[in-house]
Amino acid sequence: MKNTPTFSNLVEAFKMLPGVGEKSAERMAYSIIDMNEDRLSFFIASIKKAKNLIHQCPNCGGLIDSDICPFCSDKVNHKTCIVVAKAKDIDYFSSLKNYHGTFHVLNGEISSLKGIKPESLRLKELEERIENEGIEELILATNPTVEGETTALYIAKYLEGKVKTSRIAYGVPIGGNLEYVDDLTINQAIENRKEIK
Amino acid sequence: MKNTPTFSNLVEAFKMLPGVGEKSAERMAYSIIDMNEDRLSFFIASIKKAKNLIHQCPNCGGLIDSDICPFCSDKVNHKTCIVVAKAKDIDYFSSLKNYHGTFHVLNGEISSLKGIKPESLRLKELEERIENEGIEELILATNPTVEGETTALYIAKYLEGKVKTSRIAYGVPIGGNLEYVDDLTINQAIENRKEIK
Repeated sequence: MKNTPTFSNLVEAFKMLPGVGEKSAERMAYSIIDMNEDRLSFFIASIKKAKNLIHQCPNCGGLIDSDICPFCSDKVNHKTCIVVAKAKDIDYFSSLKNYHGTFHVLNGEISSLKGIKPESLRLKELEERIENEGIEELILATNPTVEGETTALYIAKYLEGKVKTSRIAYGVPIGGNLEYVDDLTINQAIENRKEIK
Repeated sequence: MKNTPTFSNLVEAFKMLPGVGEKSAERMAYSIIDMNEDRLSFFIASIKKAKNLIHQCPNCGGLIDSDICPFCSDKVNHKTCIVVAKAKDIDYFSSLKNYHGTFHVLNGEISSLKGIKPESLRLKELEERIENEGIEELILATNPTVEGETTALYIAKYLEGKVKTSRIAYGVPIGGNLEYVDDLTINQAIENRKEIK
């Protein structure tokens, strides 16, 4: 079976998914062939429906499946806004119990390697929102990487004087073992130490 | 996004695939939303095409995507036949350079737990093939589990006198470390030891 074009195509299709290698793709391909019609219809329908319905909110850039964006509603506090690189990053913060503010998706991070320039990020939209919504603080939550750092610094500089900007804290992750934490993080954890009162 | 029904459905759909848990399914779901139309069309078309074209060969039970089964052609040696539980198991043996025989898929293994009885296996078909194709030896390659063992013993008994039956060898896997091999396997490796000549 492995060498037939139909099966190879199916394996290639599954390899497009993140974290799926040759072996996993083969197992998935076989499970598709074994799947009954009902389950397969559900599988394909779910993909098509998600692709058709889910879109970015024109204001915050978060992913929504209806016209009303829960992240931009009147119920949230528009004074604070967490700025993230990708729409899915909102998920990591939206479940926080003590955060009631808004979000803003940049759709990327500045990267000379990937050729992503500041102009291609949703910065104009962010600037407009600061005025329109009266945002007082931006919490820059881009990734703790060179690209994320560059982007955060660029935004802080770009919007200097217009809004207060802050960066999420660096330190050792809770529940982790010091053995596995890198030097840079340890260094930041010491520098950003907090007095126990 | 995580809590919307459209997205949850998509995550549930991906969780139907083998080895995919909540986190992986979420990553896959996001990759579908990010995917461009061309790639998504290829993804869905590959699934549909495979499901439509791939079927079991009525003779050997192997999976094929055309009317001609390469495993049953005149080019192979019909005197030896490897008997496997599932169609995908053929893949593990079909790339062997020194095996030129046929295959037979049982479509399962005898299991009292799962309620699989000998009658639901493709045994009648196997019996017919022994006569029609003149099979002289069956290599029983069901899994090295209780179910696979039971099935192999059952077939050997069932076809006694009609055909020679053999079972694939047990022993330590090549390239493995003895540290990780279980007692039963070590025991079999000692019992089935081969004299070095």
